[in-house]
Amino acid sequence: MKKLMNSAESVLADSLAGMALAHPDLRVDPETRVISRAGGPVPGKVGLVSGGGAGHEPLHGGFVGRGMLDAAVVGEVFTSPTPDRILAALRAADSGRGILQIVKNYTGDTLNFAMAAELAEDLGLTVRTVVVDDDAATGIPAGAQGRSTGRRGTGATVFVERICGALAEQGADLPAIAEAGERVNAASRSIAVALAPCTVPAVGHPGFELADDQMEFGVGIHGEPGLRTEPLRPVAEIVADALAVLLDQLPAGGDDRTIVMVNGLGATPLLELYVVLNEVYAVLRKAGLTIAHTLVGNYVTALDMAGVSLTVCRADEQMLGLWKTPVSTPALRWGC
Amino acid sequence: MKKLMNSAESVLADSLAGMALAHPDLRVDPETRVISRAGGPVPGKVGLVSGGGAGHEPLHGGFVGRGMLDAAVVGEVFTSPTPDRILAALRAADSGRGILQIVKNYTGDTLNFAMAAELAEDLGLTVRTVVVDDDAATGIPAGAQGRSTGRRGTGATVFVERICGALAEQGADLPAIAEAGERVNAASRSIAVALAPCTVPAVGHPGFELADDQMEFGVGIHGEPGLRTEPLRPVAEIVADALAVLLDQLPAGGDDRTIVMVNGLGATPLLELYVVLNEVYAVLRKAGLTIAHTLVGNYVTALDMAGVSLTVCRADEQMLGLWKTPVSTPALRWGC
Repeated sequence: MKKLMNSAESVLADSLAGMALAHPDLRVDPETRVISRAGGPVPGKVGLVSGGGAGHEPLHGGFVGRGMLDAAVVGEVFTSPTPDRILAALRAADSGRGILQIVKNYTGDTLNFAMAAELAEDLGLTVRTVVVDDDAATGIPAGAQGRSTGRRGTGATVFVERICGALAEQGADLPAIAEAGERVNAASRSIAVALAPCTVPAVGHPGFELADDQMEFGVGIHGEPGLRTEPLRPVAEIVADALAVLLDQLPAGGDDRTIVMVNGLGATPLLELYVVLNEVYAVLRKAGLTIAHTLVGNYVTALDMAGVSLTVCRADEQMLGLWKTPVSTPALRWGC
Repeated sequence: MKKLMNSAESVLADSLAGMALAHPDLRVDPETRVISRAGGPVPGKVGLVSGGGAGHEPLHGGFVGRGMLDAAVVGEVFTSPTPDRILAALRAADSGRGILQIVKNYTGDTLNFAMAAELAEDLGLTVRTVVVDDDAATGIPAGAQGRSTGRRGTGATVFVERICGALAEQGADLPAIAEAGERVNAASRSIAVALAPCTVPAVGHPGFELADDQMEFGVGIHGEPGLRTEPLRPVAEIVADALAVLLDQLPAGGDDRTIVMVNGLGATPLLELYVVLNEVYAVLRKAGLTIAHTLVGNYVTALDMAGVSLTVCRADEQMLGLWKTPVSTPALRWGC
């Protein structure tokens, strides 16, 4: 295992300390591992909270700021934060108009966020939850791959956070924001391909093995193996295969405009991500879809995994408009 | 070799096509490989141009936009663009007040940009050049490592582009901007450490070999070996050793404030880059230096190399002020 760290035990705390130094407009609490806006909750605004295991940086802390989250909370690498810490995030985001928590669909996360919401309600806070479950690789109801826990939550988290964040900034109320979040999630699907596995610091070896000419199709963001191991092929074929699965599950809808994310899983250079986007564009055009907005970069990573995830949201007029409004976070920033 | 591409021959063209799709505010010319502002040169503003080999993304094209470059030009991977293409970038940046070209110190680049400047002058353009040579690993005058070509240009390129870009946006004239560029370069040093080498697409195998417990100290951004191969150690020791070399060469000066970049070389997760920043902060503080501004992320990469480069600029009042002014490029964006 090759990592720039002092020890597997200290890597998360050291990383959060560095994050605090890099972003003085964020408050990073080393005890609770809650990352929140330095100015505290915005009066009169619905609070937005997300979180999950570490190892997906910049998700989640990198999306705290104007136009996105009010607070994020991280657990150990690939491990859900505990309910008490999630509660601390909810309190850090609360200005009295209610809080929306955006939760990726994993058993630990959904349980712990649900428990935190109960604790918060006991304290008089109003909490609504949007569960993100966009991973098309886990939506295939085939044999051993069928999952009773439903689809995993991955890249669409960024879309839900951005669009709900924009709506909250405009003063919308909690039910409206939660409804928009559900709509964005329902309109979005993702799929990922890994060229190399990742290594969890506390484990010390890769989560699966790949030969020099192999890739993992339909991989998750926690080092788990994907749907199947395949020969590495030209990227045009990889993207066509991946989008075939994704588009097959993308809800039909009146609008053919999309928001697309080409997301590096951690170890893939931007040079290659742009190549992927070029292929995505060609496949979507053939499918009668246009790209209205694009994100290309590392947004939802899996430590040092090499590969890419694709997320497509069939966006309506409201989503497209909200997407463009100002956002100011470490990882996403425009218009302000 | 595992890369998301169709072929080594097409990777650059495909990547530029994807870049054009991702950034409609940029104009990407597939023939000349010049990336420029979609709106053309800004009337009354000194033009800023940079460029070099591909494989360092987001450098250089990702820094085109308000507050930084007017045009960038890329050659093949790790290969200087030819003079005629550099000339096309100079013309794309020209609004009649002169052009500053910012060139990393490599033989091919300095020769080709000098030739392009001559061609441009023949056409009546006024061109000044700042050569960036900040790599402390090549500043050690020891035996085989001594280089008659001087220090390599690496991370400080971003600092020179940002500060000169800010000054140009404010309406400064060419001599003032060139002088500021020289000052930023003189006040900056970098050093890099690789945990894994990179693979040039057209070559197909890594540029050097590293065992599972080794790292390369003082590495360059073109897959060339570094000063020495060393055992991988806790990051606190790596950063202390790297900054010892860097700070030894950092010009003494009245101001103890710095701008610091912790730059991923391509395959290193943000989680680890924040850990590195935390150590950098501790070492600089012991050295009596404070960090006024920080960049943490992938800015000057070497394809899929794993590792980090550190750049420290001992900044004066003018630099610190200019740094904060609005910038709007794909890779650096704030205040607008």
